[in-house]
Amino acid sequence: MKLGNVQIANTLIIYHNTNAHIAEQLDIMNQANSVFRISVSRVEAEFLRVLLKVGFTKDKSKILARIFTENSIDGVYTHGVNRFPRFILYVKEKVIDPNAEPELKHSAGALEQWNGNLGAGILNAIKATDRAMELANQFGIGCVALANTNHWMRGGTYGWRAAKNGFAFISWTNTLALMPAWGAMNPKIGNNPIVFGAPYNDEAIVLDMAMSQFSYGKLEAAQIKNQQMPMFGGYNKEGNLSTDPTEILETRRVLPMGYWKGAGLALLIDLLATILSGGISTLEISNQKYEHALSQVFIAMDLSKLGNASSITQTINQIIDDYHTSIPEDDSKEILYPGERVLKTRKDNLLNGIPVDEIVWEEIINL
Amino acid sequence: MKLGNVQIANTLIIYHNTNAHIAEQLDIMNQANSVFRISVSRVEAEFLRVLLKVGFTKDKSKILARIFTENSIDGVYTHGVNRFPRFILYVKEKVIDPNAEPELKHSAGALEQWNGNLGAGILNAIKATDRAMELANQFGIGCVALANTNHWMRGGTYGWRAAKNGFAFISWTNTLALMPAWGAMNPKIGNNPIVFGAPYNDEAIVLDMAMSQFSYGKLEAAQIKNQQMPMFGGYNKEGNLSTDPTEILETRRVLPMGYWKGAGLALLIDLLATILSGGISTLEISNQKYEHALSQVFIAMDLSKLGNASSITQTINQIIDDYHTSIPEDDSKEILYPGERVLKTRKDNLLNGIPVDEIVWEEIINL
Repeated sequence: MKLGNVQIANTLIIYHNTNAHIAEQLDIMNQANSVFRISVSRVEAEFLRVLLKVGFTKDKSKILARIFTENSIDGVYTHGVNRFPRFILYVKEKVIDPNAEPELKHSAGALEQWNGNLGAGILNAIKATDRAMELANQFGIGCVALANTNHWMRGGTYGWRAAKNGFAFISWTNTLALMPAWGAMNPKIGNNPIVFGAPYNDEAIVLDMAMSQFSYGKLEAAQIKNQQMPMFGGYNKEGNLSTDPTEILETRRVLPMGYWKGAGLALLIDLLATILSGGISTLEISNQKYEHALSQVFIAMDLSKLGNASSITQTINQIIDDYHTSIPEDDSKEILYPGERVLKTRKDNLLNGIPVDEIVWEEIINL
Repeated sequence: MKLGNVQIANTLIIYHNTNAHIAEQLDIMNQANSVFRISVSRVEAEFLRVLLKVGFTKDKSKILARIFTENSIDGVYTHGVNRFPRFILYVKEKVIDPNAEPELKHSAGALEQWNGNLGAGILNAIKATDRAMELANQFGIGCVALANTNHWMRGGTYGWRAAKNGFAFISWTNTLALMPAWGAMNPKIGNNPIVFGAPYNDEAIVLDMAMSQFSYGKLEAAQIKNQQMPMFGGYNKEGNLSTDPTEILETRRVLPMGYWKGAGLALLIDLLATILSGGISTLEISNQKYEHALSQVFIAMDLSKLGNASSITQTINQIIDDYHTSIPEDDSKEILYPGERVLKTRKDNLLNGIPVDEIVWEEIINL
């Protein structure tokens, strides 16, 4: 193949399934293809070109291109370069409205309800994060509950953004139903990621976790590579816990993290996102053709407003320094805090370029 | 044995261990003893008698007796009747100050920092919950970060309290270190329970979950009964995941819920509780003789202040009604939302009395 002069058909990889919604959650990096590295500036320029073409303003295109690029730099390819073609498809299919602006629906003081008006999830989530920080600056804590938005891509984006600005941060989103409740057979609960963030020197400690133990993307990738999961990932058709991705993908009974615990948290996250935003729930999202009109919550706490503001950096350093004295089971492995691996990936990708699947890159340059 | 005229020595069951702190987390119901039922009023009266005797005012004693009784009625015996003797011991040992009053340290508007002054954890947590609700009533959202408090017993207490009053609620506490970080051998992170609550008709949906897959109490109980855990609960000394409580108790490498996910959340919970409250962290708590001076966070959101307040009941009912249509794997089992089992236990215990271990009851009536 030749880059920039592609011979292969512009095929968007979407997994087809009896439940079309499941495709939403798939990691579209096909592990069988070759992967090469492309410079950050080249990737970002390509994103920018396509975003302008499908109707985003210059300002919006710049922000979106930056976030899709940053997600890729940080190694979250599933919500960076690999997701970009589907994002553009959704714009073309009018699932995402490039002209939409989020708007305030209702203010209760430090808690506001916003309508995302089906705009790009990243743009709405950035606005919500920034507004939660503004409210926190005014009231100590601020909350924006956002209805009618689209997939925010990587939840960690907003955790890093708030934490690097000196805020403690909690945020979550609902999704379509793709896991059964605990003890059940049919999907009723979402993957509903939740994000916790705190500042750490000039960077951040950010936990960004979905409620399933493994994403469908990870299961698919292991299946392609003929690998077993490192832990149980779901049930087989005999109703036994399994590490075999093929068996699990057959039943679609993926395992909630912590079994009943993650299943319970998934329900609560959906419920709180829905009622706080006045938006729609996992149930209603799942009844749509596309996974959209999501409900999200963004809570920021301004650490500079606390009585102990001057000692917070020292406190966090003390906790993390002690954490790093953990004795690893495997001497060759470091014990990392949530987000620490991202820094290593970021450094590598900034230096050597973003790893990109050849098929995905062809799709992008043909968009 | 005769109740009210006890022959057996007044032995407080505290598990002894090379790490004395681990005893803090143990379920002190000894599964080998016989269990009988005692009426709610009799249990509460006994609690009240002892609380007054150790120096709590009448008002404080009434609240504490009620909460310890309610925790027992709801089936959370580990933080009700079974924990009561240790609570009293801590008062006698001056770990808990019966005369302490929580006080406001710093206000940032809708976010306040309080000092628990080492008073009873339940009293401080109730005050913090109520104050978070007051702040939410004023600002839409309210947060109380509480330093220097003691064990709150059952986190769900505060979730039910806030949710039954019409608030969405999130709260968490740190604890001493009792789990290794993911991939590590030595305990660095706490069990750090987190609570999420939402109203549901006249009751509540409340998730109250610790960061370990199983408590030490559950492991001990299974060991006594010579049972295996239903899922992996930790590592054996060969470094393999195990369902054998004896093997796990030997290594003390209990498993975080969701493996790396629960381990990461435990770190973040501790970090946020510590910096938001200006209190001490799991690291410092673990360096004390007793597990005390904990840091906690209470966040309430007043649903009556939302633009969609009138439709919230209907929205929650719709979500739960759909959830209840889940198809159970085992036809004999219902699919329950977090907190639903509590209602069944509550009904049973109110009718038939609270199940009490004979040794524990003797301890209590001899206090």
